[in-house]
Amino acid sequence: MQKLVKGIHQFQQSTFASQKRLFERLTKGQHPLALFITCSDSRIDPSLITQTDPGELFIMRNAGNIVPAYGAVAGGEAATIEYAIGVLKIRDIIICGHSHCGAMGGLLAPDQIAKLPAVKSWLGQAEATARIIEENYAHISDPQALLTATVEENVLVQIENLRTHPSVAAALMRGDVKVHGWVYKFETGQVFAYKPEQGQYVPLAETLVEPKEVPVHLPAI
Amino acid sequence: MQKLVKGIHQFQQSTFASQKRLFERLTKGQHPLALFITCSDSRIDPSLITQTDPGELFIMRNAGNIVPAYGAVAGGEAATIEYAIGVLKIRDIIICGHSHCGAMGGLLAPDQIAKLPAVKSWLGQAEATARIIEENYAHISDPQALLTATVEENVLVQIENLRTHPSVAAALMRGDVKVHGWVYKFETGQVFAYKPEQGQYVPLAETLVEPKEVPVHLPAI
Amino acid sequence: MQKLVKGIHQFQQSTFASQKRLFERLTKGQHPLALFITCSDSRIDPSLITQTDPGELFIMRNAGNIVPAYGAVAGGEAATIEYAIGVLKIRDIIICGHSHCGAMGGLLAPDQIAKLPAVKSWLGQAEATARIIEENYAHISDPQALLTATVEENVLVQIENLRTHPSVAAALMRGDVKVHGWVYKFETGQVFAYKPEQGQYVPLAETLVEPKEVPVHLPAI
Amino acid sequence: MQKLVKGIHQFQQSTFASQKRLFERLTKGQHPLALFITCSDSRIDPSLITQTDPGELFIMRNAGNIVPAYGAVAGGEAATIEYAIGVLKIRDIIICGHSHCGAMGGLLAPDQIAKLPAVKSWLGQAEATARIIEENYAHISDPQALLTATVEENVLVQIENLRTHPSVAAALMRGDVKVHGWVYKFETGQVFAYKPEQGQYVPLAETLVEPKEVPVHLPAI
Amino acid sequence: MQKLVKGIHQFQQSTFASQKRLFERLTKGQHPLALFITCSDSRIDPSLITQTDPGELFIMRNAGNIVPAYGAVAGGEAATIEYAIGVLKIRDIIICGHSHCGAMGGLLAPDQIAKLPAVKSWLGQAEATARIIEENYAHISDPQALLTATVEENVLVQIENLRTHPSVAAALMRGDVKVHGWVYKFETGQVFAYKPEQGQYVPLAETLVEPKEVPVHLPAI
Amino acid sequence: MQKLVKGIHQFQQSTFASQKRLFERLTKGQHPLALFITCSDSRIDPSLITQTDPGELFIMRNAGNIVPAYGAVAGGEAATIEYAIGVLKIRDIIICGHSHCGAMGGLLAPDQIAKLPAVKSWLGQAEATARIIEENYAHISDPQALLTATVEENVLVQIENLRTHPSVAAALMRGDVKVHGWVYKFETGQVFAYKPEQGQYVPLAETLVEPKEVPVHLPAI
Ligand SMILES: [Zn+2]
Ligand SMILES: [Zn+2]
Ligand SMILES: [Zn+2]
Ligand SMILES: [Zn+2]
Ligand SMILES: [Zn+2]
Ligand SMILES: [Zn+2]
Repeated sequence: MQKLVKGIHQFQQSTFASQKRLFERLTKGQHPLALFITCSDSRIDPSLITQTDPGELFIMRNAGNIVPAYGAVAGGEAATIEYAIGVLKIRDIIICGHSHCGAMGGLLAPDQIAKLPAVKSWLGQAEATARIIEENYAHISDPQALLTATVEENVLVQIENLRTHPSVAAALMRGDVKVHGWVYKFETGQVFAYKPEQGQYVPLAETLVEPKEVPVHLPAI
Repeated sequence: MQKLVKGIHQFQQSTFASQKRLFERLTKGQHPLALFITCSDSRIDPSLITQTDPGELFIMRNAGNIVPAYGAVAGGEAATIEYAIGVLKIRDIIICGHSHCGAMGGLLAPDQIAKLPAVKSWLGQAEATARIIEENYAHISDPQALLTATVEENVLVQIENLRTHPSVAAALMRGDVKVHGWVYKFETGQVFAYKPEQGQYVPLAETLVEPKEVPVHLPAI
Repeated sequence: MQKLVKGIHQFQQSTFASQKRLFERLTKGQHPLALFITCSDSRIDPSLITQTDPGELFIMRNAGNIVPAYGAVAGGEAATIEYAIGVLKIRDIIICGHSHCGAMGGLLAPDQIAKLPAVKSWLGQAEATARIIEENYAHISDPQALLTATVEENVLVQIENLRTHPSVAAALMRGDVKVHGWVYKFETGQVFAYKPEQGQYVPLAETLVEPKEVPVHLPAI
Repeated sequence: MQKLVKGIHQFQQSTFASQKRLFERLTKGQHPLALFITCSDSRIDPSLITQTDPGELFIMRNAGNIVPAYGAVAGGEAATIEYAIGVLKIRDIIICGHSHCGAMGGLLAPDQIAKLPAVKSWLGQAEATARIIEENYAHISDPQALLTATVEENVLVQIENLRTHPSVAAALMRGDVKVHGWVYKFETGQVFAYKPEQGQYVPLAETLVEPKEVPVHLPAI
Repeated sequence: MQKLVKGIHQFQQSTFASQKRLFERLTKGQHPLALFITCSDSRIDPSLITQTDPGELFIMRNAGNIVPAYGAVAGGEAATIEYAIGVLKIRDIIICGHSHCGAMGGLLAPDQIAKLPAVKSWLGQAEATARIIEENYAHISDPQALLTATVEENVLVQIENLRTHPSVAAALMRGDVKVHGWVYKFETGQVFAYKPEQGQYVPLAETLVEPKEVPVHLPAI
Repeated sequence: MQKLVKGIHQFQQSTFASQKRLFERLTKGQHPLALFITCSDSRIDPSLITQTDPGELFIMRNAGNIVPAYGAVAGGEAATIEYAIGVLKIRDIIICGHSHCGAMGGLLAPDQIAKLPAVKSWLGQAEATARIIEENYAHISDPQALLTATVEENVLVQIENLRTHPSVAAALMRGDVKVHGWVYKFETGQVFAYKPEQGQYVPLAETLVEPKEVPVHLPAI
């Protein structure tokens, strides 16, 4: 704790001064550029990797960057998403997995989480990820490659879950929101984005600056 | 999104290089200093205010920095906390509210969230906060002061909820974890810490570097 | 009841005899062609409209042909779907809405179901349908046209929900199952099928005999 | 799917014409004779065995013809029943089990459904059936006889569950609804009805055309 | 509290001595005569009205003597009942309502409990009682008579709920447990027992010493 | 049952007469001295040990004297507590565990309750107790001592849970309610009260007549 308290004093005496006007302006309200959903893992700093300032990213973090399908959990995820769309009118949602994710590791090794009932229950919201890996990746034996596939598939599973939330579904239909699937490989600093047309992840550098959204049904009448 | 993608390229070309060794070392695992629970609000950057590097803060964020009591929601909060204590052996948990919190504003003005059913349901986990304000703060009429009281009381309510989680309860009893209640006033850069002995929040600068923990029952035999 | 009992005697004395061999063969197990999900409405007879025999359609029926997203309800829908995919290895799932649907009418007129708490709660699983209609169909004032849009959108919403079920997600990924969105207009005998490429429903007669499936992400590695 | 699409065209070109007037009349509303609750099993066709036309049976189908007790599952069953009683004023409810039921087979052999978590969870609503068989049928060793007993007892257990639904309980008390327990043996075409006075199932042919209802408490004042 | 502490000292110094042998014997285990389910109301003392000693009544008390149907609430009621049947082998279960019950009063006057969300939610488990009163007792205008009817009907509704619990259902079938519906009118000291054959409550004095159980289905094979 | 019916007649013919005036007075309402929460165990008679009359104790009883944390179970416990505080304005809440508690024994021996799913699920609300014992009492090998520690710790865990209930939290803050942790050793007639300042249980005789409440945070502004 000592380090944190010192850090806060350092922030107050140096950094804050240079951003004072920004912070004062922010008392009038926030207008973030995106909802950034990622894992609680300490090795991810969303503001650092996107080089954004306070006020620019609305951030939701939990173990495994999981978004329960609508109605599955009356928890913080549904509320935070609804607030982002309904109140803040955010138009971009990023779900960002990451390399070396402990939660996804637990999904692959149920034995390791047998004594962690809340974690086990929570990973039930990634059961589709587990089934996809079990049924469709049996040919991969390398544990590292399997973990990477799990992280990647889980981002897509959580995007499917995200699309079931009413505020998201209604905004998606009229093109008012776009959903982006990312994986951050912190040891190389790379960010991979899922490209639906190609059906795979590609380094963000190669994607168009304005990525196309995940396809959605058009008006039906 | 354009700004975020540019930011990532900038991060990859400049910042990452200077921290490359740190990130490589972090592939061996994370050993964060604390679990930092705060609101999804874009105006809070936990790493900035504590001046910490990647790997130092395990971060959970949702609308209103709420921690449902044990068993109340089979959601990300219980799992993230259990993972922090059970796997990462984190010894300090900070619940950090903040000024101008929209979620707490919604708690005070149910009409404003009538069209946000997921938010409304989620704020049910802060019902104790609402009752405390309604029953014990009737004498405060200034909306700003009432919001501050709500933010402060809510941090204490969520600490009570946090203490019902089995992994936390067991660790608290043997002194292996400490729980800290903070409120961050972003427009001044101040952080206030709750001091149980005094029954009030004080600027973090004035507290001892090693704050005393919230009191807990001793072994009972 | 009298009519039903008479009908059973009639069935036993006439119809059964002609299908006796079929029924005897079916004691060895069922190998249905599809899982047919439709409303409980008495005006829909799936076997009649598809001209199928016993053993050919595995049928799930509830008010509103609703499929809660995975985890939302520990109910019959999740189990019936899992059984269809996991045990019966069914490769086609049809969600079939219908004209004059009372459940969808209730979704549009919450006042009418105020005294029906279980119905109201159940329609919460079609909340995305309600939001899509409210936010994106404000320009339609004709009640009949609005009900049609609701029925059509609801089928697509329930398909999104269906895709979150682990057994479906894993089978979709490897192309082992196809999901079809239909609307049955019983007063004309027409069946409309949703064509994702066109983003609209077309009479089933005009679709290819082998309709393309709703798009799904490809393997991600 | 090809067969189903062909069937629909055949229906539209031949059968529909002969029932066109019926279908047109049904646009004015449905007045079904009964709520028919049965298994999703493809070998059961309620309209065929009762020789009924569209508009005559309001049908609810799920794996195992299960009706969770009131409040146990906020699912389609409670809503469909409430709609049948509250809106359609249906006066007869039939719960119809069947021979060779795979769901009841799963109840007897938990190992077979270990990899089907949704099915396992759903069969929890038939836990009373499982307990009745385990505790009271230990003397039966023949698997076929045990499955028959399970199917029969399960219909009675689900009738008990059905009676806890408020709309059913209130209607039962004033004699406005009757509940019938049936078992359909598809390989012989027989339908057995439970006779409470005798405490056993008898072929429907032998029962009175108007079966007596399951006994219910009388007004208590 | 002072009165309670004094009472305890008085108990220790006088009453305990006379029952010391009984209490010592009870350390070897309890073999209660019945499971007594009643309201938390302070005016009911089960031991006093049945003149029983410690060790004779296994007692469950909550507001309204409510027993949620099986699966409706993962609460203390299901566990306490299962423990009574499964571990203690209790053979008689009494559900005992009472005159002037505040919980039943709240069921009749929803406005009075609008500010009591937990009470309101809990009374949802007596929704069948509310529906029975609303639909079938419209002819009674006297509030006192209506409350009496509500208390009486609620005991019967809770008996229906109780019968859905697996341990109870299985024991009922083989005659190992009997369920008794009572209403205690504390102002006169009278206890009324429901007689199923008569469909009404009668003073306990008039019933046979061994009341017949509520009817249950017989073995079905 | 015979004994109970005889007891009731005896009560009506002798005891009731002597308390007739009390009972008549109680028709005007109840004003209990305390909410007494204890186990369903037949060996505990709250009125006997506190030497109180009808009207003096509002009593909640379930297996294990468990109080789920707020929101964890929509059950009788939350409602009964809310009614006690919100309607009856009770100012003292006693949670009273006891020696030889079978529920706590089950918590220590999960194997013994493997066939009791409802009990097992219910004891999940005492998971914090189980974790405290497992992690912090590994040095105790004597089963009797371990059971005593479990009973004592469980009372404190349930007090923590109780404090999360909104009505309790709000009343605690302004000193309108006090919470007392007791353990009753029926074989000696002793009652032990937890003294927070000492961090241990002491015989009630030694405590001040007016015990200090469990500490709570003060107003925070
Ligand atoms: Zn992670
Ligand atoms: Zn906030
Ligand atoms: Zn319909
Ligand atoms: Zn079946
Ligand atoms: Zn009462
Ligand atoms: Zn006990």
